[in-house]
Amino acid sequence: VVVTSTGFALADTDPLPSWNEGATKTAIVDFMTAITTEGGPDYVAPADRIATFDNDGTLWSEQPMYVQLAFALDRVKALAPEHPEWKDEEPFKSVLDGNLEALAASGHKGLLEIIAATHAGMSTDAFTEIVTDWMATAKNAKTGKLSTEMIFQPMLELIAYLKANEFDVFIVSGGGIAFMRPWTETVYGIAPPNVVGSSIALKYDDTDGAPKIMREAELNFNDDGPGKPVGIESHIGKRPIAAFGNSDGDFEMLEWTTSADGRRLGMIVHHDDAAREFAYDRKSHFGKLDRALDAAPQEGWTLISMKDDWKTIFPAE
Amino acid sequence: VVVTSTGFALADTDPLPSWNEGATKTAIVDFMTAITTEGGPDYVAPADRIATFDNDGTLWSEQPMYVQLAFALDRVKALAPEHPEWKDEEPFKSVLDGNLEALAASGHKGLLEIIAATHAGMSTDAFTEIVTDWMATAKNAKTGKLSTEMIFQPMLELIAYLKANEFDVFIVSGGGIAFMRPWTETVYGIAPPNVVGSSIALKYDDTDGAPKIMREAELNFNDDGPGKPVGIESHIGKRPIAAFGNSDGDFEMLEWTTSADGRRLGMIVHHDDAAREFAYDRKSHFGKLDRALDAAPQEGWTLISMKDDWKTIFPAE
Ligand SMILES: [Ca+2]
Ligand SMILES: [Ca+2]
Repeated sequence: VVVTSTGFALADTDPLPSWNEGATKTAIVDFMTAITTEGGPDYVAPADRIATFDNDGTLWSEQPMYVQLAFALDRVKALAPEHPEWKDEEPFKSVLDGNLEALAASGHKGLLEIIAATHAGMSTDAFTEIVTDWMATAKNAKTGKLSTEMIFQPMLELIAYLKANEFDVFIVSGGGIAFMRPWTETVYGIAPPNVVGSSIALKYDDTDGAPKIMREAELNFNDDGPGKPVGIESHIGKRPIAAFGNSDGDFEMLEWTTSADGRRLGMIVHHDDAAREFAYDRKSHFGKLDRALDAAPQEGWTLISMKDDWKTIFPAE
Repeated sequence: VVVTSTGFALADTDPLPSWNEGATKTAIVDFMTAITTEGGPDYVAPADRIATFDNDGTLWSEQPMYVQLAFALDRVKALAPEHPEWKDEEPFKSVLDGNLEALAASGHKGLLEIIAATHAGMSTDAFTEIVTDWMATAKNAKTGKLSTEMIFQPMLELIAYLKANEFDVFIVSGGGIAFMRPWTETVYGIAPPNVVGSSIALKYDDTDGAPKIMREAELNFNDDGPGKPVGIESHIGKRPIAAFGNSDGDFEMLEWTTSADGRRLGMIVHHDDAAREFAYDRKSHFGKLDRALDAAPQEGWTLISMKDDWKTIFPAE
């Protein structure tokens, strides 16, 4: 119920207009009604209304590759003139040759070298500026759209619906915390303190009279899989009552959220709409959904079919 | 200006009634006026109004020893019957003998052993319960009061004043994040996501069908000194515009806050009131204030004299 400026109550304004009517939308609305009904058996006080969202594939598209991976590869290309040796050195050679299969073969070690070369060795302020500039111009390789245009309108409505019901809403992503924070407030309405993600080590440096925080070439925290409940405990310090993901990397976050006592909501965005976005699950390199897809029925996690449940995918231009 | 229920504006309600009039109180009010005056040269948008508070010695008393140290020593005593070997093993022997000098001589290694024995090896939920039970009953060795009764009334008013002016208020403490979160919301009105502190490693465990997060006997993060700006960056992701501390462990937090462009506020609680609380600074084992005391004038940090600036210290009973 929205009270208009004229003082009349405008009943039944749909908080989720981009969601088709059906079991999925009903599950969301029923959950909200249950946990906000004072005196009801499932009532949750506002202070304990915590919701967590995965980012890649849950709030925005992650195909044909993770946005942050595209960023890292672009940074290697941008920095290559300063590193002539990269023409002959892996993993950089493969990146510059556009040979993603060879890059994948360089494995974890190769990825760490690319992160060290593109995400470390500068101050936090300098990195924020690099990310902001890149996000403003870099286009998705398949659609030609900005990444920030490939966010999911139904999920924006869900975030707003949760906030309107006094939820504290967090992103809990395997992606880099410093890669997300420069734009999540503008794009999703989620401020930096409410962003949880993977991180590299930071070091305070006040040696030259202008203090800065330097980004170091060393992994600090991997906010994926079993790391997600740990990231939640570290940054939030409360157990969520609602969680939204799209891949096996969200299994433990969903499990941690929905296995507690009381009414809980766990949902998985299923990418089944090749016509309007992308269709993938068990075999995908990015956003693989296999174990969590099998577990969903017994765990009580609701699958969100992008094809059937979403009237629109992306915000209107 | 507070608008009363009768609709009249009640001007000049003092937001800081426990602060004596003078330069310190004026510095706070002038800062607030400057950063909230729209169109003024020092205006700061609400989204960037971040304030950080140290805890021990800034929000509550830290003498005759840190509250968390008293907790750890009490836990050693409580657990001793299950560990008969502690009677002959350092550092536990010294704790059980009440020999704090010998304990201090066991140094960093001894402290880690005590943390491992008292803060690790249980789930986060179990630890929260232990802390909550202890806080409800343990008394300060000098005053016989609960620790939560030895919080500083003027600082509670300052937190409320900042929040009323749309600040996001955080604790940034060298103390353990998990030791603070069970009670900061009730005692200070600061919720768990807004508490930053030191931590041990956490591990998600879903092996037995009832997922839990286990506390591991391994330090994860030391939120003190140069760790404070790093903790701020990690948890908040924005640079504070106001910071409040009381010891050399707050030097870098104050420096990081006040050396940025724009109007900033840095303040140090100076324990100079032996009659009503405790008097200590350069030579104290707990809350040593030496380097930051010397640097305050040139850095523009205001000293808060507990004796002269505070009308009352503790909340009325
Ligand atoms: Ca994902
Ligand atoms: Ca302190």
